[in-house]
Amino acid sequence: MNHQQTLESSGRQPVVGMVGAGQLARMTAAAAIGLGIRFRVLAGAPGESAAQVAADTVVGDYRSDGDLLAFAAGCDVITFDHEHVPQPQLRALEQAGRVVWPSAAALGFTQDKLAMRERLTELGVPCPRFEPVTSLADVAAFAEHTGWPVVLKAVSGGYDGRGVWVCGDSAAAAEVLSHRLPVLAEEYVPFERELAILVARSPSGHGAAYPVVESVQRDGICVQVLAPAPGVSAEAAVQAQRLGLELARDLDVIGLLAVELFETRNGELLVNELAMRPHNTGHWTIEGARTSQFEQHLRAVLNLPLGSPAMVAPVAVMANVLGGTDPDLYGKLNHVLAADTGLKVQLYGKPVRPGRKVGHVTALGSDLPTVRDRAVRAANYLATGSEEPAAQPATALGGRQ
Amino acid sequence: MNHQQTLESSGRQPVVGMVGAGQLARMTAAAAIGLGIRFRVLAGAPGESAAQVAADTVVGDYRSDGDLLAFAAGCDVITFDHEHVPQPQLRALEQAGRVVWPSAAALGFTQDKLAMRERLTELGVPCPRFEPVTSLADVAAFAEHTGWPVVLKAVSGGYDGRGVWVCGDSAAAAEVLSHRLPVLAEEYVPFERELAILVARSPSGHGAAYPVVESVQRDGICVQVLAPAPGVSAEAAVQAQRLGLELARDLDVIGLLAVELFETRNGELLVNELAMRPHNTGHWTIEGARTSQFEQHLRAVLNLPLGSPAMVAPVAVMANVLGGTDPDLYGKLNHVLAADTGLKVQLYGKPVRPGRKVGHVTALGSDLPTVRDRAVRAANYLATGSEEPAAQPATALGGRQ
Repeated sequence: MNHQQTLESSGRQPVVGMVGAGQLARMTAAAAIGLGIRFRVLAGAPGESAAQVAADTVVGDYRSDGDLLAFAAGCDVITFDHEHVPQPQLRALEQAGRVVWPSAAALGFTQDKLAMRERLTELGVPCPRFEPVTSLADVAAFAEHTGWPVVLKAVSGGYDGRGVWVCGDSAAAAEVLSHRLPVLAEEYVPFERELAILVARSPSGHGAAYPVVESVQRDGICVQVLAPAPGVSAEAAVQAQRLGLELARDLDVIGLLAVELFETRNGELLVNELAMRPHNTGHWTIEGARTSQFEQHLRAVLNLPLGSPAMVAPVAVMANVLGGTDPDLYGKLNHVLAADTGLKVQLYGKPVRPGRKVGHVTALGSDLPTVRDRAVRAANYLATGSEEPAAQPATALGGRQ
Repeated sequence: MNHQQTLESSGRQPVVGMVGAGQLARMTAAAAIGLGIRFRVLAGAPGESAAQVAADTVVGDYRSDGDLLAFAAGCDVITFDHEHVPQPQLRALEQAGRVVWPSAAALGFTQDKLAMRERLTELGVPCPRFEPVTSLADVAAFAEHTGWPVVLKAVSGGYDGRGVWVCGDSAAAAEVLSHRLPVLAEEYVPFERELAILVARSPSGHGAAYPVVESVQRDGICVQVLAPAPGVSAEAAVQAQRLGLELARDLDVIGLLAVELFETRNGELLVNELAMRPHNTGHWTIEGARTSQFEQHLRAVLNLPLGSPAMVAPVAVMANVLGGTDPDLYGKLNHVLAADTGLKVQLYGKPVRPGRKVGHVTALGSDLPTVRDRAVRAANYLATGSEEPAAQPATALGGRQ
């Protein structure tokens, strides 16, 4: 297919290149179809989630200057479905005159947790107390102020697929330090639940904030999202949205910014993590909001006006489908769709592995317990083939309603 | 990319092959992404609307047995974005053991207007009076019962891109007959407005009907769709939906069936045309219904349970973007999206030609005149670059509200 030729014959169609071909790129591809733009993905291998569906897939290594520059050559803007492109490669793209959103500087705050914590502190944004540590003595000194456990976090990356360790005592901290990677110590926050804010910001400064949601986690993985977060006052919700919009401005984020928050017992909100891309806590927006997070991200990086983030129903619940032992997800779709005609299922086309996110289910309605039960039952059936509802992690408000 | 390989590694993913790569296939491709299935299109040429976005595009001729059979080889089910595949080719696919939905027999009723009228009459479905005609004497005899004008319709196809001629007198009828193609004469119905019913039916017999809509036409082209059709009583709406579901059953349609209706002055509904595929009068369902017509068609042909056709807002209006003289649609998107953050635009990636459908706009809300004005203004701006609202064709109810 001669790409250039078809571009010319169909008027101007900007090309958005997304580095990464996971489910976030896959769902962004669906949003790109409606906008009438061209969408290109950089996949690590053929057959990846987004490569299965996108007409324009380039296979290459996101850590290679050459592959990235070749990929970017025909693109009007480069964006990302993950935050793993190293800074030198991001800078090389920018120095080559490519439009990169979010910018290397902004993405840096998702890649260096110490820089992120320091910047947020400068900005007066409430965070858990933290301190860079290089020795066990540093950790012990930190623990004198916060008590144990102490959370150790890799400044960048991690090992054994993890970057966060809750250390109950000095011996556990010593084990983490023995791996000799840069870490910071963080206060262990006995939070009531986790909330998330999702905002978008465009180069012209236009911003839009989705309703604040509750992110229900199990073993550190987001398994359910309740939109809007139950039991949040209108005032607190607006304050949280404002925090998201201000952070996007202050960190100069173009595209989406997801802010993961701890809500403490006294209602204080502390920033836990940042992500600058479509986010698991925003999947409900595909059917639950006037503008999906995927379309919103494209509109932002293209400097198109942002769309309404308003909900289309009073309540939306998203439940992740975590892989079980049965590789055949599609075979279970029949049962799930028959049981609930209003349910929306997204399958990612990824090989099933235990615990891996292979899809999600969204239910809309007006009564949170009912809507939540519908979504969780369906996701659980897709994962396990069992009719039993998944055990719901206890949460402060979402779990009790 | 090795297609078979990726299929095996991701569990069972059925492959739906759609013959035709226009905007209907393009929007179906977006729906296929969420269902986690594989979607393949047969395009006449690279760069066609759906070929721009679908990962799996085969270029071939839908009139060629060989091309169709080769295309169908890796597909679990074959379906269509148009009704132009000739009967012998459809039968060849079926005889080769391919699953073809809708079937050759069902599609025949969209390809042979005389067979359609005769079958509908057998079924007792109200239609305009009709008669096959082969001579001017036949037409004159028909006009003695119905009066002039008489509508002549090509039984199949047509000439000069048309298949319907409203003949004011015998001379006009003679001109049509001089082209020597099989025609039928139809009573000219001075209808008040046009309505449409869209239903889906699956091989297991499950059916679903969308709300009855009004289709506003200009020069024989659908330019606006109002959902639900204003001024239709709940009783009449249910009756129309039942007509659609019964027709789908009686004609053994699998997939979508769109029924275009004339509403006469006394409220009678007469069947004008049938289509067995996603339909222009169903585009509003992408954002306006729980399940879009494109997802519904895929679910039907895959024999998955059908999704809820319920609306997500009290009113939805779709306005088609008809090509003007400016080939740059994308350049006008900025203005349209800035003016109305709740608006949804679908651009088809097709070269702009005057009068050609190159996109559509959908607005949702609760007040029909407001929602309609939003959609029509935006579509008009995309078409013409002008702020003036498009002249609205007068309709019985939609136009007056």
